Amino acid sequence: MSPFHFSRLHKEPLLLTPGPLTTALATRKAMLRDIGSRDDSFTAINQSIRQRLLIIAGAEKGYTCVPLQGCGTFAVEAMLSTLVPRTKSCVLVLVNGIYGRRMAEILDRIGRPYLTYETEETSPPNTVDINQILIARKDITHVAMVHCETTTGLLNPVETIARIVVSQKRSLLLDSISAFGALPIDVRTIPFTAMAVSANKCLESVPGLSFVLCNQDTLKKMEHNAHTLSLDLYAQWSAMEKDGQWRFTPPTHAVLALEQALDIFDSSGGQLARLTRYRKNCSTLMEGFQQLGFTPLLPTTLQAPIIITFLLPPISLPNFCFSEFYAHMREHGYILYPGRLTKMNSFRVGCIGNINQTDIIATIETARYVLYRMGAKVPTIS
Amino acid sequence: MSPFHFSRLHKEPLLLTPGPLTTALATRKAMLRDIGSRDDSFTAINQSIRQRLLIIAGAEKGYTCVPLQGCGTFAVEAMLSTLVPRTKSCVLVLVNGIYGRRMAEILDRIGRPYLTYETEETSPPNTVDINQILIARKDITHVAMVHCETTTGLLNPVETIARIVVSQKRSLLLDSISAFGALPIDVRTIPFTAMAVSANKCLESVPGLSFVLCNQDTLKKMEHNAHTLSLDLYAQWSAMEKDGQWRFTPPTHAVLALEQALDIFDSSGGQLARLTRYRKNCSTLMEGFQQLGFTPLLPTTLQAPIIITFLLPPISLPNFCFSEFYAHMREHGYILYPGRLTKMNSFRVGCIGNINQTDIIATIETARYVLYRMGAKVPTIS
Repeated sequence: MSPFHFSRLHKEPLLLTPGPLTTALATRKAMLRDIGSRDDSFTAINQSIRQRLLIIAGAEKGYTCVPLQGCGTFAVEAMLSTLVPRTKSCVLVLVNGIYGRRMAEILDRIGRPYLTYETEETSPPNTVDINQILIARKDITHVAMVHCETTTGLLNPVETIARIVVSQKRSLLLDSISAFGALPIDVRTIPFTAMAVSANKCLESVPGLSFVLCNQDTLKKMEHNAHTLSLDLYAQWSAMEKDGQWRFTPPTHAVLALEQALDIFDSSGGQLARLTRYRKNCSTLMEGFQQLGFTPLLPTTLQAPIIITFLLPPISLPNFCFSEFYAHMREHGYILYPGRLTKMNSFRVGCIGNINQTDIIATIETARYVLYRMGAKVPTIS
Repeated sequence: MSPFHFSRLHKEPLLLTPGPLTTALATRKAMLRDIGSRDDSFTAINQSIRQRLLIIAGAEKGYTCVPLQGCGTFAVEAMLSTLVPRTKSCVLVLVNGIYGRRMAEILDRIGRPYLTYETEETSPPNTVDINQILIARKDITHVAMVHCETTTGLLNPVETIARIVVSQKRSLLLDSISAFGALPIDVRTIPFTAMAVSANKCLESVPGLSFVLCNQDTLKKMEHNAHTLSLDLYAQWSAMEKDGQWRFTPPTHAVLALEQALDIFDSSGGQLARLTRYRKNCSTLMEGFQQLGFTPLLPTTLQAPIIITFLLPPISLPNFCFSEFYAHMREHGYILYPGRLTKMNSFRVGCIGNINQTDIIATIETARYVLYRMGAKVPTIS
């Protein structure tokens, strides 16, 4: 049993993480250029990127895409603080993991009324409940939810909930940071009011740049509503509408990287091709790691092809030490992701990024070798 | 008169801008690597960068350096909203340009009491006035000011004001975004409570990453004071103190670039060498552009060697059109920066970034050629 033909000693490590993740070299090479942030050539790139993201969401009509410096959470806070009115509002936040809870934490901090509807980390919200809550509580104006909850990898039923929210005449604020670009999100089937997305997840670009896709009529009414200048989407949008320029220094290199990443996205077949690749990554990983004795947290019906949570210890090694496993996998060039479950020991493996079947198989075989060296009884390569 | 040996047609354009600016290729090449945001190797780089910035400010003792995703304004807002208490506070904001005014705008938005002390864009604050205001107004708890006001290029008297603020037992909150790394800023001579800085100005790295250097005892008292989750420096700091990791996705590539930029900073002689180079860039530009008929806005005593504002039109061409001049300079590979004065037509030329005497002379000679082609009477090369 030799790991050497899977070891990445002479290559860059492979990030099996939910973003920052493994990007294409061409995407990183796009950052080799310094570009003037107020030059027309840069303005044109921004406008093009904004339009391309709207197209991915089928939202060219009536929607605008507002870019923001910083990470996905900044975009979520910008979305909530700009679009939830300071008075006469109440947000129903669906929570089944860290990112749902974070939306509640943001609303708490910025002083907007909210309720949480919380389910176990392994349970999607009950859509019948949501409908009834919206009927019973007329004060609820918005529903905020996470598309794919990265805490576990769980896919929430956004389409069903979006329909309920619209039929009950409320607004849906969606955190689709970890899903956008891979899972289908079309505003015509998932009628959101606004959706936060990020460059460095399924679009496979670098971190430092996020976006909110937003109903333009709604946004237009929200001048001075945000509790912050930096995260004010209205101000960001209206400045950009004027001359195409960012209000404050943009992450120019990250913008260039995303332009390249979108070229790759388009030329490799767009969202559907990406979903297909990630699904294959996910199912191969799932099967391989289960064979090695790891138990996945979620049933396949709830599993999004974004990131998988495996419970610890594996049945192949009851006295398993994750940090040892992590260190050995890392030595061979495979970067795993720690778990974040509240009640169980776990770790996570990402399915997204510029990784394919060969990489996933190499990951499994390296894990097989590492587990074997750690004393586990693992089946040999089939 | 031939411009060809100055034209950068086969090179990247030179950014004569205040950031994003021209960086070293090695700095950009550092971004060719994807790195796991929760991996120990990345944590170690962060800790090292935080320490190195404290050393530049002579603030290793009693101070901490908190990194933040996003641009300099995000850091300024994070500083103000985390460190100015919600009640029983009043900030005196010194305004003589866009960035001073922006601090007032932030305080207004986040609901912290403030006063402005405003002088003309070409006038530093009168330090005697400031002293008297602090004596008269016991309710003032903080003074907020900009080190180098990029609107004009004006150097504000931070050292004198810092001493007044300390002697009057108030706190100084400094925006040193455009100056840090070049102008001398030592907490022992400029006793600030907190200072916002950025990676992409005089440290010559890429945009997307900023920092607040902050008195640690002050910061420790500020839990839950910020009006935002994303820009809460206390939370950012306390999470990072725990395990060295960022709360939310960090701009990993920008962090790697800054590490490389700091290596270059150190090996090229640190702050003093950088100041010397920028001063030479500034004086050469000043002399050359004046010779071409451009009048600088500021007297040399007020001019920081960061960015120069020139008034329009130049005496060599009364019917001068800046956009035409910009476009021609751009064609030859030189990116200038538009003016932002409230009362006069102007444009700006940056002295900072990975640019040296040869670049500055080439800029002047290209400008000479372009002006000549635009019909100006300009002296030929001396």
